Amino acid sequence: MPALDAHCSMASRDEVEQLQLERLQATLHRVYKNVEYYRDSFRNCGFYPDDLTSLDTLQKLPTTARDTLVKNYPYGMFAVPLREVIRLQSTSSEVRGPIVVGFTRNDIDHWTELAARSLLSAGVGPDDVVHIYIDYGMFPGALGLHYGAERIGASVIPSSNMPPDTELEMMKNYHTTVLVTTPHKALRLIDFIRLHHVNVKALMLRACLLVGQYWSESVRKRIEENIYTPVFDCYGHSEIVATGIAAECKERNGLHINEDHFIAEVVDPASGKALQPGQAGELMITTLTKEAFPLIRYRTGDITRLNEKPCGCGSCFVRMDKVTSRTDDMLFVGGVNLFPAQVERIIADAIGPAASRPVFQLVVAGSEVSESVEVALEVNEAIFSDRLRALRSLEDKIRDELFDIIGVTAKIRLVEPGTLGQQAESVRVVDKREANL
Amino acid sequence: MPALDAHCSMASRDEVEQLQLERLQATLHRVYKNVEYYRDSFRNCGFYPDDLTSLDTLQKLPTTARDTLVKNYPYGMFAVPLREVIRLQSTSSEVRGPIVVGFTRNDIDHWTELAARSLLSAGVGPDDVVHIYIDYGMFPGALGLHYGAERIGASVIPSSNMPPDTELEMMKNYHTTVLVTTPHKALRLIDFIRLHHVNVKALMLRACLLVGQYWSESVRKRIEENIYTPVFDCYGHSEIVATGIAAECKERNGLHINEDHFIAEVVDPASGKALQPGQAGELMITTLTKEAFPLIRYRTGDITRLNEKPCGCGSCFVRMDKVTSRTDDMLFVGGVNLFPAQVERIIADAIGPAASRPVFQLVVAGSEVSESVEVALEVNEAIFSDRLRALRSLEDKIRDELFDIIGVTAKIRLVEPGTLGQQAESVRVVDKREANL
Repeated sequence: MPALDAHCSMASRDEVEQLQLERLQATLHRVYKNVEYYRDSFRNCGFYPDDLTSLDTLQKLPTTARDTLVKNYPYGMFAVPLREVIRLQSTSSEVRGPIVVGFTRNDIDHWTELAARSLLSAGVGPDDVVHIYIDYGMFPGALGLHYGAERIGASVIPSSNMPPDTELEMMKNYHTTVLVTTPHKALRLIDFIRLHHVNVKALMLRACLLVGQYWSESVRKRIEENIYTPVFDCYGHSEIVATGIAAECKERNGLHINEDHFIAEVVDPASGKALQPGQAGELMITTLTKEAFPLIRYRTGDITRLNEKPCGCGSCFVRMDKVTSRTDDMLFVGGVNLFPAQVERIIADAIGPAASRPVFQLVVAGSEVSESVEVALEVNEAIFSDRLRALRSLEDKIRDELFDIIGVTAKIRLVEPGTLGQQAESVRVVDKREANL
Repeated sequence: MPALDAHCSMASRDEVEQLQLERLQATLHRVYKNVEYYRDSFRNCGFYPDDLTSLDTLQKLPTTARDTLVKNYPYGMFAVPLREVIRLQSTSSEVRGPIVVGFTRNDIDHWTELAARSLLSAGVGPDDVVHIYIDYGMFPGALGLHYGAERIGASVIPSSNMPPDTELEMMKNYHTTVLVTTPHKALRLIDFIRLHHVNVKALMLRACLLVGQYWSESVRKRIEENIYTPVFDCYGHSEIVATGIAAECKERNGLHINEDHFIAEVVDPASGKALQPGQAGELMITTLTKEAFPLIRYRTGDITRLNEKPCGCGSCFVRMDKVTSRTDDMLFVGGVNLFPAQVERIIADAIGPAASRPVFQLVVAGSEVSESVEVALEVNEAIFSDRLRALRSLEDKIRDELFDIIGVTAKIRLVEPGTLGQQAESVRVVDKREANL
């Protein structure tokens, strides 16, 4: 087990890049040998792993999209036999198709180290009492941070899915010093604290790490003002490692990418062409140490910018901006990922066979704490001429399905044809929230 | 890390008992030195750890009840400073008071080994794909078995809380060979399989381990008949280790207690006096290796019998009967622990100040898969003379609270005073289920 420190202990860019080159060579050889998809795609562009002589060569290789992972479900992208895999984690999605990601013992060991680094960056040490207040079942990053905190030697409380009052009671009684949670759960705690005048100063909190969703600086400000504790960001991606690709240091001015395990590129989402440092685009990750599920130039769909300037903390690892938007139309509402295409499918199922696509609009409103979703749906005259009861039943059906399948509570508003205007076809989502998460 | 085998590799009873004596001496010295409660209770009965010269001496020591743990909440029973604790797990309960249990790194290591042993006893090996289909947040044993399966080197799927159709789809696609779950979730899967004519033979299952609840031989038979796979029992207790105190071997005729880590006694629940092997009584556990939260003669509340006869599997570890009942009135309904006292408190809160205790009866019916709970409640004339709406609102309130606080879905039936008879005061629970879990 390597010595634990907040950043990899390498001193210079040269050392980092030499290590990256060696690890990239090993990775490319491994995927060429073991993953049919990569072997074919490398051959198609006339590339053989021995051709790699500098890191720049990576840009000649094709990118990997999520679709490819779905096509090769379940085990087609695995680079080791199943018997060497000790963890299987699935990131299923109604709309985007299921994926299963595997980890060898070394992969889990690396992930644990990366998660530990993220916590160390936030100042967490062996004397801390760390509450992991994330649903262990829903979000694989919970287990990652659990292992990381345990490796540091902190006292870990896997509190998973408690209601806010129980959670706050535990935080007080157990002398919790570090809260690890999602922005949504943190905001719900704050809401409870305000509403019930909880004495936050009786808590012993000294850091908060937010993971699992996108969130804005206004969310950070709001949490910090209410729990008097610095809030740190930690970035991951469920197809790579759900926590620990990058994390904020004590400067909290960008997230240091763990470049001894990942190569980050930012490209133009449309053309796929490389962008200059400082230009915003889609983040692509190449894994350098993953054995079971290595990914070459994987398109994360997350929009960010890279910053190569030296950081006050002394780490030479490149920083990335906090991710607050995506290339696709995925929405985050109340802690849930929501795709307009998913909503469309549910509506189409509820309406039954129809000649044309349903015309609807999603209206998201409220603040981060109490978000509301309204689905305005044009229904044709056949339905409108029907009895009120049938309309109510259609509303109920769509509302129930949205809750059962996506987990979102929505209000359904049926409107007459033409009400939403031609715009509804292109503007599927109207986001009226005070600040996007 | 010791070599992993299904049972501790010791050859004879003599060796086991010598190890137990040494470890018990160390444990008693440790609790005497570090836990005020034990120091006082030992002194009160004139016992000093050096007095222990044989295992029989243990019987002179006072027993430890759950109440004591509640009184010393949160950290009073800890035998190490908090900084040596790497896991905190709480077993909160509305009725019985909260408890927090701590684990050092060695404790987690031992627990992992014990969970691995339970899996090895069921024939699980490094080539297996193990689905952990238990709520990681609700039941700490899920993490225990997760660590155990990972130590064996199996491929672990932390599937936590999927709906049955997703779970079966994953089991098929991922080539799951071992299912680890609760009896309730297993029965829900079976139910789904029957209802949707799922082809179980397309699965690659070869073993099933049930944990987290009590269950009967009829449940075993039913599951085995439907998934064509042997079902194994594994015993734990959330105040000790939630999984891995004892487990069934391939003979499946009693659970071998891991006597290198625990001393088991069976006593008369009323008098606390030792019973002979073969007599049914309350199980008491003394921990031999736990550092953070050692327990001396802890009364588990579980009813069982010890069996010292040699077992066909070759292990010299004593066996205990499958636990199917408890000393208290705790019920298991739909995977949830339910205490009549808890229900009483919720009813009392809903009714508001009243002169006398509420008269009610809990009727549990149905089969293991679709259990139903009905609460029959006598309401006084003041309420009955009220409008229907007030009655409905009272019903709703009780029903909602039962769901929110306990997690049980119940039907509320309000009846006139005298309807339930004087019996309701003593017979709080009527269990009409086909077979008790």
